[in-house]
Amino acid sequence: MTDRVVLAYSGGLDTSVAIGWIAEETGAEVIAVAVDVGQGGEDLDTIRKRALACGAVEAVVVDARDEFAEGYCLPALQANALYMDRYPLVSALSRPVIVRHLVEAARRYDASTVAHGCTGKGNDQVRFEVGVGALAPDLTVLAPVRDYAWTREKAIAWAERRGLPIDVTARSPYSIDQNVWGRAVETGFLEDIWTAPTEDVYAYTADPAEPRDPDELVLTFDQGVPVAIDGETVTVLQAVQELNRRAGAQGVGRLDLVEDRLVGIKSREVYEAPGAIALITAHQELENVTLERDLARFKRQVEQRWGELVYDGLWFSPLKEALDSFLATTQQHVSGEIRLVLHGGRAVVTGRRGEESLYDFHLATYDEGDSFDQSLAKGFVQLWGLPSKIAARREQLAGRQLGSAR
Amino acid sequence: MTDRVVLAYSGGLDTSVAIGWIAEETGAEVIAVAVDVGQGGEDLDTIRKRALACGAVEAVVVDARDEFAEGYCLPALQANALYMDRYPLVSALSRPVIVRHLVEAARRYDASTVAHGCTGKGNDQVRFEVGVGALAPDLTVLAPVRDYAWTREKAIAWAERRGLPIDVTARSPYSIDQNVWGRAVETGFLEDIWTAPTEDVYAYTADPAEPRDPDELVLTFDQGVPVAIDGETVTVLQAVQELNRRAGAQGVGRLDLVEDRLVGIKSREVYEAPGAIALITAHQELENVTLERDLARFKRQVEQRWGELVYDGLWFSPLKEALDSFLATTQQHVSGEIRLVLHGGRAVVTGRRGEESLYDFHLATYDEGDSFDQSLAKGFVQLWGLPSKIAARREQLAGRQLGSAR
Amino acid sequence: MTDRVVLAYSGGLDTSVAIGWIAEETGAEVIAVAVDVGQGGEDLDTIRKRALACGAVEAVVVDARDEFAEGYCLPALQANALYMDRYPLVSALSRPVIVRHLVEAARRYDASTVAHGCTGKGNDQVRFEVGVGALAPDLTVLAPVRDYAWTREKAIAWAERRGLPIDVTARSPYSIDQNVWGRAVETGFLEDIWTAPTEDVYAYTADPAEPRDPDELVLTFDQGVPVAIDGETVTVLQAVQELNRRAGAQGVGRLDLVEDRLVGIKSREVYEAPGAIALITAHQELENVTLERDLARFKRQVEQRWGELVYDGLWFSPLKEALDSFLATTQQHVSGEIRLVLHGGRAVVTGRRGEESLYDFHLATYDEGDSFDQSLAKGFVQLWGLPSKIAARREQLAGRQLGSAR
Amino acid sequence: MTDRVVLAYSGGLDTSVAIGWIAEETGAEVIAVAVDVGQGGEDLDTIRKRALACGAVEAVVVDARDEFAEGYCLPALQANALYMDRYPLVSALSRPVIVRHLVEAARRYDASTVAHGCTGKGNDQVRFEVGVGALAPDLTVLAPVRDYAWTREKAIAWAERRGLPIDVTARSPYSIDQNVWGRAVETGFLEDIWTAPTEDVYAYTADPAEPRDPDELVLTFDQGVPVAIDGETVTVLQAVQELNRRAGAQGVGRLDLVEDRLVGIKSREVYEAPGAIALITAHQELENVTLERDLARFKRQVEQRWGELVYDGLWFSPLKEALDSFLATTQQHVSGEIRLVLHGGRAVVTGRRGEESLYDFHLATYDEGDSFDQSLAKGFVQLWGLPSKIAARREQLAGRQLGSAR
Repeated sequence: MTDRVVLAYSGGLDTSVAIGWIAEETGAEVIAVAVDVGQGGEDLDTIRKRALACGAVEAVVVDARDEFAEGYCLPALQANALYMDRYPLVSALSRPVIVRHLVEAARRYDASTVAHGCTGKGNDQVRFEVGVGALAPDLTVLAPVRDYAWTREKAIAWAERRGLPIDVTARSPYSIDQNVWGRAVETGFLEDIWTAPTEDVYAYTADPAEPRDPDELVLTFDQGVPVAIDGETVTVLQAVQELNRRAGAQGVGRLDLVEDRLVGIKSREVYEAPGAIALITAHQELENVTLERDLARFKRQVEQRWGELVYDGLWFSPLKEALDSFLATTQQHVSGEIRLVLHGGRAVVTGRRGEESLYDFHLATYDEGDSFDQSLAKGFVQLWGLPSKIAARREQLAGRQLGSAR
Repeated sequence: MTDRVVLAYSGGLDTSVAIGWIAEETGAEVIAVAVDVGQGGEDLDTIRKRALACGAVEAVVVDARDEFAEGYCLPALQANALYMDRYPLVSALSRPVIVRHLVEAARRYDASTVAHGCTGKGNDQVRFEVGVGALAPDLTVLAPVRDYAWTREKAIAWAERRGLPIDVTARSPYSIDQNVWGRAVETGFLEDIWTAPTEDVYAYTADPAEPRDPDELVLTFDQGVPVAIDGETVTVLQAVQELNRRAGAQGVGRLDLVEDRLVGIKSREVYEAPGAIALITAHQELENVTLERDLARFKRQVEQRWGELVYDGLWFSPLKEALDSFLATTQQHVSGEIRLVLHGGRAVVTGRRGEESLYDFHLATYDEGDSFDQSLAKGFVQLWGLPSKIAARREQLAGRQLGSAR
Repeated sequence: MTDRVVLAYSGGLDTSVAIGWIAEETGAEVIAVAVDVGQGGEDLDTIRKRALACGAVEAVVVDARDEFAEGYCLPALQANALYMDRYPLVSALSRPVIVRHLVEAARRYDASTVAHGCTGKGNDQVRFEVGVGALAPDLTVLAPVRDYAWTREKAIAWAERRGLPIDVTARSPYSIDQNVWGRAVETGFLEDIWTAPTEDVYAYTADPAEPRDPDELVLTFDQGVPVAIDGETVTVLQAVQELNRRAGAQGVGRLDLVEDRLVGIKSREVYEAPGAIALITAHQELENVTLERDLARFKRQVEQRWGELVYDGLWFSPLKEALDSFLATTQQHVSGEIRLVLHGGRAVVTGRRGEESLYDFHLATYDEGDSFDQSLAKGFVQLWGLPSKIAARREQLAGRQLGSAR
Repeated sequence: MTDRVVLAYSGGLDTSVAIGWIAEETGAEVIAVAVDVGQGGEDLDTIRKRALACGAVEAVVVDARDEFAEGYCLPALQANALYMDRYPLVSALSRPVIVRHLVEAARRYDASTVAHGCTGKGNDQVRFEVGVGALAPDLTVLAPVRDYAWTREKAIAWAERRGLPIDVTARSPYSIDQNVWGRAVETGFLEDIWTAPTEDVYAYTADPAEPRDPDELVLTFDQGVPVAIDGETVTVLQAVQELNRRAGAQGVGRLDLVEDRLVGIKSREVYEAPGAIALITAHQELENVTLERDLARFKRQVEQRWGELVYDGLWFSPLKEALDSFLATTQQHVSGEIRLVLHGGRAVVTGRRGEESLYDFHLATYDEGDSFDQSLAKGFVQLWGLPSKIAARREQLAGRQLGSAR
C-alpha cells in the first residue's frame, strides 16, 4: 500500500504547496485536514476543493467549533488561564483540538505520518508534534517548512510553476492566527517593540477610545460554565461568540506584550480576545465570591502551571490531566450571576449574587445584624503572630531588629 | 514612673476619644503618634494640637511620605504586588511604617504599651499587633475598640460629655483609608455586593467614562526603581504622586472586588490606586522584556506569596525578609523605558526599550537578519515531548489515550 | 428536652472525669464516644462500661480501624505525606475520623455540643474543633481542659471525690498518642532537645542497633493501593499491621524532630511509624518508576501542601478536597511490585517491576538495544540553554558574568 | 593564528583519544584541562603528562577541591538539595566548577571552542554546554562522542593505531562518576531495575549490615556553614572528607533509585554520599530548630526548584542566582550544634542546641514553667477554622457534607 501523510491544512499558500511537495518528495498520498475552530474566513467547502485541486487524495473538513469551545476554551476559562498574567492562550488552545482531528484522520486513512506547516522558531511546532506524540506515539511527524527550510518565495515559485489555484498576491503584513477564543498578530513592524500597534492590526475589536454608550449584561454561571447571558440560555460557543461581539464592540480585550516563547526567545505579540477577557473577568470575580480562601490561593498556582503547560505544548500530558482534576473539583460551587459593564476597552464587574456565595453579610457588616464575634480576634491575632514574635525575641537578644536587612 | 501608652492617632473621633479613655481606664499617660503617609486631609500641626487638647501628654507627628514610598510602596511595585491578582495592598503597606514609628516613640518615651483603634473583624488589627510584636516583642498591645466593644455611639457620647474639640456630625457613609499608594472604601451600601459603586465613592480618580484626550508619557526605571517621567528625574514619592494625578485624571485604577480577609470572612472593597496601577502595569511589561523566562515564572509565585504575607500582617517576618532578597536580586536588570498611554480608565503600554532588554530582534524576526538556527528545533521538540510520548505508549498498550479522562 | 453533649472519650483519667464535670457544669446529658483507630490497649467493651460508670447516659464504641486505614492512612500514603519531610501525620490523621464519629453520634442522639479533652497549646484542639465546624457548623464545641484550665491534679481530686473507677496512679512519664499508622511521644525529659530518647520511649519498634537477620518482602500496589505482601492479598489495614510488625521488628520508622506546631511554637516529638515509613518508601519508588517527570515534580508541591493542611487541622476543607482529586488522578498508574529489604532501622528498595513502568530499558541502556536517538540531543541542549545564553550575552556586554553575584 | 580547542580531560580512554581526534578533524590545537574535585584516582601530574603524550599542546590541571566544597557543595547543603527527595546532586554539582575552569582556560589560551566527552542521552552534556553558554556565550561547544557517534570500540581502535599510552583493558562494568560530594554508578547489570546492587558497586561506604560500634559526633554550624566537628575547626572540604570517612565507615548514604533525566528518559542510578547525607541530615534538623515556620515551609519549595535547576544544568542562570539570594538570607540564623549518631547505615540526630534556637522550653513545656497563654487558643482555633465553617454551612444548606466527595 502507498504510504499516506495527513497534513494540517489551512487553505493558504504554504500548506497548499505542501500537498504537492510532500507527495513528490516522499511518494506518499496526502490527506488534507482542515479544522474549523471559529477562525472565520473561507467556508470549509471552498477549502476542501482547493486541497483536492492541489493534489490531495482526500480532503477532510471538520466543524470543531463546539468541541473547541467546550473541551478547550472552557477549561481555560475555569483555569482563568492567562500566560504571563496576560495572554489567554488563543493559539495554544486550538492546536490540541486540531491535533486530535489529525490523529483521527491518520487512523481512519491508515496514515503513518502527520505533517504541519510551522516554522522552527515558534511555539506551534511544539504543540503539533508533542500533541501528536502524546496521542499517537507511533506516528511520524513531518515539518517541511522547518526541516527543509521552505520559504515564502520558494512556495510562490512552486505554486506558479504548478499552476496551483492560490492567490499569491494577497498578503497580510502580519502573521495572524485566529479562532473563536481570540486573534494573535505578530511580525511586520510589530517586531520593533518601541512602536505602538496601529488600528489596522485589529479585527475583533473596535477602537476603545471611540466614544460610545456602555453595554451592561448579566452572565450566569453554573459550576464554572457560562450558561446564560441576560437570562437567555447559551452554549459555551454562543457565550464566547456573543461576548466577542458585544465586548469587541466596546474595544475590550486588546493586549500587547513581549512574551517568552518555549524555544527560548522573546517575541512581541498583539492579541485581541474580547470574549475571553470578558468571561475570565466575570469568572474570576465569581470565584472571589464562591471559593474558600486557601483553595483560591492554591488555585492561583495551579492556574499558572496550567497556563505554562498549555502554552508549552503539553495539553495532552499526565500533569495536565491531574491539574484538570483539581480544577474540575474547584468549579462545583462556581455558580451565580455576575453583572458586567463593557465600555471603553474595560470589562468591569459591578455586581455578583447567587446561592453558592460565601460572602456573608452578617459576618461582614459593621452595621446592625453583625454576627461576627470580635472577642475571638485577640487570641487569633496573638497566635498568628507568635512565630514572628519568637523570631523577634531572638533578634532583640542579638541587638538586631526584624526587617532591617533590606 | 507613670506607665505610658503610645497611641496610633488619626485625628478622628475614635482615636481622639481613646486618648482620654485609655488614660482613665489604665492610669497611664498617653502619647499620640500621627504618621503622614500621604493620606491628605488636615495638616499635621492641627492634628497635633487636637491630640494635646484631648489629653495626650505628648503628640508626635511624622512626615513619613518619602520613607513610605521608598521603603514600602517600592518593594510592592517590584513585587508587582496585587493581592488576589487585583488589590495593590494600599492599607496593608501603610500599617508597617506606622508601626515602626509607634515603636520608635514607645522607645523614646519609654512606654510599655502600644494602642490602636482597629476593630476585631478587619485586617488592620493583625497588621498593627503582629507588627509591634515583631519589632518590639516586649511591648503590650491595647485595642480598646475591639477588646472593650467600643462603638461610635459610645464614642460620641464620651466626646460630648468631655467637650472634646471634635466634629462628631461629619461622617462619611463609608469607611475610608487612604495614603499615597491608594484609597480603600468599604461598608455602607457597598455591603450589598450586587449593587455597583456610585460616583461619590471615588476621590482619587475621575470618571473613566467621561470623554477626554489621552495622556501619553514615558517612564524610566533603573533597577526596578522609577527614576524619571518624560525625562524629568523624580523620587519614588514624586513618581507615585505624579501618576496619581495623571492616571487619576484618566480614571485609571478603580477596583471593586470581594476579598478574603485574614480573619476568615469575605468583604467587599472598592479601591482607587491610579499611580500604583499605572506603575505596576509599566513595571510588569519592563520585566517581560528584561527578565529571563524561568526567573519570571518563579517570580510570579514569589509575588503571590509576598502579597499574601503583607496582606496577612507579616511585613516584619523572616519569610518576608528572604523573599525580599529574592526580589532585590531580580531587579538588577529591570532598567529601561516604558511608553504608557493613559486613557478612559486604561493604562496601556505601547513601547519598551533599553540596554537591558533580552528581546533580540535578530532571534525574533521572520524577516531579513534572522539569526535563529531552526535546525536545532527538531531535536528540542522531540526531547521536550519525550516524557509525554513514553507515557502515551503506556496508555496505548492499555488501549487508552492520554487526555481522555476529562 | 435535656441538652446533650457528645464527648470524645479515651477511657483515661481526663475524659472520664470530664463526663461528670460536663454534666454538672452544663446540666446536659453526656454521651461518650470511643473510636478504635488501632491504638491497642483496653478493649472497647471495658471502655464502654467505664464511661457508663462515670455517668455517661450513653457510651458508643466504634471499631473504625478499616475505615481509618482506607479513608485516612491510604490517602496519606498516596500523598507520601511527611510533614516537614519527616513526620507521617500519625495523630493528625486519626482526628478527622474520630470527628466524623462524634458528629454522627451528635446527630443520632440529637446533641447540640461536642466536647474534647485537648489542651490549648497542641494541634489536636484545632483538628477537633475545625473538623467539627466543617462537618457540622451548627454544633458548639466545648474544651474543658483548655477553657476551664483543668489540670491533672484537679482531675485526680475530682475522681477520688466521686469514687470514679479509674486508676489514677498509673502514669506514663510521656504524653502518648497511638494508632495503626504510628505512635507519638512527647513531653517529659524529651522537652530537653539536647537529650537523646531512651529505649523505653519506644513501643512499636525494636532497637535498630541490635544485630538480627534482614527481612525481605515484595509489596504489590494497584493504583496506589497496597494489595499484596509476598503475593498474599491484604486489605490496607492488614498491610499496615503486617508492616508494623515486620518493619517494627527491624527497628524501622523511628523519628525524633523539633516540629512547628500550628499554634506557633516549636515542640520536640518522637515518633514510631514502622508500617507507614516502609509503605511510603516503597510507594515513592514505585512512583519514581510510574509517574511522568513533570507530574512527579508538581506532585511534590501538592504533597507538601496536603501534609500542611492535614497537620493544620484542615482535613475537611475545600482545598483538601481539590488536592485529593489531583492525587487520585496521579495514582491511576501507580501499580507494580517493589522488593523491600527491612534491616537495622532501614527500609531499602532493591527492585521494582510492573506493566505500568515508564522505565524503558531500550532508551536507557548504553549497551546493545539502545533506541535513543542521540542526534536529537544537540538541538535540545542548545534551545534549553538559550534563555541563559541570551541573559549571559547581556552580562558580557556589561562586563559582568552570570553567577558571580554570590 | 591556529584555532584552539579546550577539552575537559579526565585522563581516561575517551578524552585521551579525543585530543588527537579533535586536532585531526578540526586542525585546531587542543588544550587539555583536568579539574580535581576530589574524585581521587591518579595524581594530577600523571594526568597532565598523559594529555601531553596524547598530543595536547597544553595541559592544565587544577586542584579545585576547596573551591568545589565551598562554592558548590555548601550551597547544596544549605538548600538541603536532594533531587527527587533523594539524590544529593553529586555529578550535577561538579560540572559547573569544571565549566568555570574550562572557560577560564579558553580565555587564557584564546580558544574559540570548548569540547567535552559526554554522550547524547545523559544530563552532563546539558550541564557542560548550557554552562559554557552561560559563562561565555561566544564560545562554541564540540561534543565528539555525541555528535560523531564515537563509541568505545572506535576509541580503542584509534588508541591502538596511534600507540597512545592508555590501558584500554581495564574497564569497570559500570559507568562511574565521583567527587568529594559523592559517587554515582550506573549501567551494567544495574540497568535491570528489578536486580539489587551488589556489594562491589560501592567504594565510599562499608556494608551497613555488618555489625560494628556506633560513631557519635557533634557538628557545629555557623550561619549554615559546618565549621567544627567535635569541637575541632574544619573547612567545608575537611568537613565533607571527615564525614565521608566516618559516615562511610558506617554504611551511611547509599541510594538506589529510578531517576528522571532531563533528556526525557528514566534511568537507574546508584549513589553513595556518606558525607553529604550526614551533613544534610544535621543541617535539616538545625533548620527545624532555627527557622521560623512560614520561612521553613516556603524554603522547601525553593529547595525543590533549586535542586531541579541544578540537576537540569542551569547552575549559571538568573533564577538560580535569585534563589541563592533567598537561601543566603535564610542561613543567617542557622547556627548551633547537632549531635549525630552514625550507625548501621543511619545518620540519626540525637540532640540540638545553640543560641539561635527558636525552641522555647517555657512555651513548649507541659510542666512547671509553662508561659503559653492557653486562653488565646480558642479565638485562634475559631477564626482559623472560619473559612471551612462558612463553606460547610453552604454544603449543609445544599444537603451535602464537606469531604464526602472522595
